[in-house]
Amino acid sequence: MNEVEFEALVEKITADIHAKMSKPVRAVRDAVCSDCTGKCARRCGFKMDDFVSAGACRIGGAPGIGNLAGGASAMIDHTLLRPDATESEVDQLCDEAAEHAFASVCVNPVFVERCRRRLEGVEVKTCTVIGFPLGATLPDVKASEARRVQDLGAEELDMVIPVGLLKSARHDLVQAHVEAVVATRAPGHVVKVIIETCLLTDDEKRAACRLSVAAGADYVKTSTGFSTGGATVQDIGLMREAVGPAVGVKASGGVKDLETLERMVEAGATRIGASAGVKIVREAGA
Amino acid sequence: MNEVEFEALVEKITADIHAKMSKPVRAVRDAVCSDCTGKCARRCGFKMDDFVSAGACRIGGAPGIGNLAGGASAMIDHTLLRPDATESEVDQLCDEAAEHAFASVCVNPVFVERCRRRLEGVEVKTCTVIGFPLGATLPDVKASEARRVQDLGAEELDMVIPVGLLKSARHDLVQAHVEAVVATRAPGHVVKVIIETCLLTDDEKRAACRLSVAAGADYVKTSTGFSTGGATVQDIGLMREAVGPAVGVKASGGVKDLETLERMVEAGATRIGASAGVKIVREAGA
Repeated sequence: MNEVEFEALVEKITADIHAKMSKPVRAVRDAVCSDCTGKCARRCGFKMDDFVSAGACRIGGAPGIGNLAGGASAMIDHTLLRPDATESEVDQLCDEAAEHAFASVCVNPVFVERCRRRLEGVEVKTCTVIGFPLGATLPDVKASEARRVQDLGAEELDMVIPVGLLKSARHDLVQAHVEAVVATRAPGHVVKVIIETCLLTDDEKRAACRLSVAAGADYVKTSTGFSTGGATVQDIGLMREAVGPAVGVKASGGVKDLETLERMVEAGATRIGASAGVKIVREAGA
Repeated sequence: MNEVEFEALVEKITADIHAKMSKPVRAVRDAVCSDCTGKCARRCGFKMDDFVSAGACRIGGAPGIGNLAGGASAMIDHTLLRPDATESEVDQLCDEAAEHAFASVCVNPVFVERCRRRLEGVEVKTCTVIGFPLGATLPDVKASEARRVQDLGAEELDMVIPVGLLKSARHDLVQAHVEAVVATRAPGHVVKVIIETCLLTDDEKRAACRLSVAAGADYVKTSTGFSTGGATVQDIGLMREAVGPAVGVKASGGVKDLETLERMVEAGATRIGASAGVKIVREAGA
């Protein structure tokens, strides 16, 4: 797919979404991009304004990604969470993010400080993960981790809920985990709540979304990428319905190509996770 | 395999190991069981004295395990680390551990307090995991987690090294992670260092073992069970050689049957991890 075809697809997606949406698209964009603090034009690729207006302001990436057409680069969350990722791989991640003006790098906590130093003076956010990937540590340990990584420069926190407590119907405890992390959130920073959809029933997914919103989360996110499955269109629709229009929904894993991206965005996703980005941006003519 | 055959196998293993060992077996047992604080007779199954003397004082278990012959029950680390494990499954784990006098339950931090309450007055240890399973959070976050879980009743801590830093040859940083957790260790408590062998070269495995010993770890352990592989006989031999006789070696994952257990113990393992235990104890005539 070349740039012209990509732009045409963007227009088609936009038209489809406009046709389906009951709220003005600008209102939705303002809601989902509230974390961009006025820098949306660069961060969220407003060259593709209507596409972004529909909610898709980030796409996941991975090391080795090439140049992208139009403003798509600024929609990439450039992600590397493998436990054996090395310092040099993280450096490469940062350099690519800087070169292509990606929205963020997403790394494990041990690499947050390294990323901030390497990205000094560059407008690329550092995203990291909290209680990852099992979500089964103590809420105050998650809060402690969240404070420390923000001290070191992280601006976005992808935390994991205690799935086993959710499955034990201890919604109060699960919400307390999200609240503990949200309470550490510095101004302008973002908390995403990974609910690990592949392990949940539909009722549990809805409950996880509702309590995340009640706890003040900025996004709900489908998957860690370390369990038995990733995002599905059905789950994105369910999550969008559960959280309403003012909270972001991130589809992570399972978005294999532009067609799937289109379906995820139509279903309500406002960010798309890592492995999706790699193939999608190549298809976009990189 | 019935009980008589099992005992015969134990004798054979013991004889094999005696023949191979240069140190008196009693000295080895004392070394590996130093954490038992005088309760070895019950905790470590001294009815099978020579077998234990050879170093195998624990075997992993899992929910649903039955009665065991002889003193084998007291060698079981009864483990449940799935992120979606529920409170009722954890309760079942505790009840089985109490009923069969297993050595410990091993659960995620969020369940430590529940286990201690349920095991009140019962001589079963609570083991938990630190920085698990990626090992890629900050050392002070690992230390904070280690302090909190011990406050809540955990007596054994299975921590994961930052694998990516090891692969970046930052041995100083990796050792600092282990030291940070060891520094929190209360008297009589045990720190095991999971090096995730499946992601490492042999040189990296040796380095991880050496720095764990230098940092004061009680055990090195092969695997989290959440990566690409488990223990191998070759790795156990390598790790035993690297740590010397005074530090424990735990083989977790990949021990499928009594024959493999025998080979692991011969190679130097002093504990055997979870999934192994399930099948092995069934073979033992439970």
